[in-house]
Amino acid sequence: MDAIQAVLTRRSIRKYTGEPVTDEQLETLLRAAMAAPSAANKQPWHFVVVREAGLREAFTEFHPHAGMLREAPIGILVCGDTELELGDGYWIQDCSAATENLLIAAHAIGLGAVWCGITPRAERVAQTKALFGLPDNVIPLGIIAVGHPAEEKGPGERYQAERVHQDRW
Amino acid sequence: MDAIQAVLTRRSIRKYTGEPVTDEQLETLLRAAMAAPSAANKQPWHFVVVREAGLREAFTEFHPHAGMLREAPIGILVCGDTELELGDGYWIQDCSAATENLLIAAHAIGLGAVWCGITPRAERVAQTKALFGLPDNVIPLGIIAVGHPAEEKGPGERYQAERVHQDRW
Repeated sequence: MDAIQAVLTRRSIRKYTGEPVTDEQLETLLRAAMAAPSAANKQPWHFVVVREAGLREAFTEFHPHAGMLREAPIGILVCGDTELELGDGYWIQDCSAATENLLIAAHAIGLGAVWCGITPRAERVAQTKALFGLPDNVIPLGIIAVGHPAEEKGPGERYQAERVHQDRW
Repeated sequence: MDAIQAVLTRRSIRKYTGEPVTDEQLETLLRAAMAAPSAANKQPWHFVVVREAGLREAFTEFHPHAGMLREAPIGILVCGDTELELGDGYWIQDCSAATENLLIAAHAIGLGAVWCGITPRAERVAQTKALFGLPDNVIPLGIIAVGHPAEEKGPGERYQAERVHQDRW
């Protein structure tokens, strides 16, 4: 798929067929994520690939907007490592760029995905860390549900000219 | 350009020819940015397109890593609006996704760009707000220098298999 088309037509996909995501597709997604820029090129990220149905179900029990994880064959937990980042929370920007790369790549190869936020909600962060056994220095940014789309959406039409300013506010 | 190729081969470009960025190219970049996902689809972003040489120069006087803005024909200041965001600083993730979209789009149409961080550095935030006259509720995430590339870089080769975990840490 063309890159501009992929960026402009990517949408949050929350319904999936039962078809599995292949290891090759998964590696494409993870390579895309890790190709992101990061502050001082620190690459302070980790990815937990969640396939176990029990783990996906347990996540939905404390996250109010993650019900689609029950049907998605894979969840990818995107985490930042405060011992690897440049400092002061730059990891949030770094891991957000990695997440966006992953979402674009999923759409480009015919998959559907949605980003479910964890940070900055302290309770969700604590419950996620407990569920997946994350060390103290590893903080979950969000989890991305990935599968083969069972819904179609047109482009988002989000452009707002009034959000563009010239030289000064 | 193919979407996966664009994501995998995008690099930070800090040297530019004197060729200007056209209005059409600029609109492609801004449309890409605003196509990003955001928490609860709040789209809490603003973009200040900086062309004035005096403003670009003034920015480099307080930002230690933005010297390339002197040569770049355009800087795009990406800002979050705390009155529009879902809350609690989600705008940082939203605006980081928008920034990454813009960087991918720039690369895909043959331009070169680099993301210079402002948030979370409090002094840089304050100086940027003063220079561009940003209201209290509008916070600069970073500035993206954009131009026609005068340097070539191969893919970043950032994939690290050890950063991928299966089901649990």
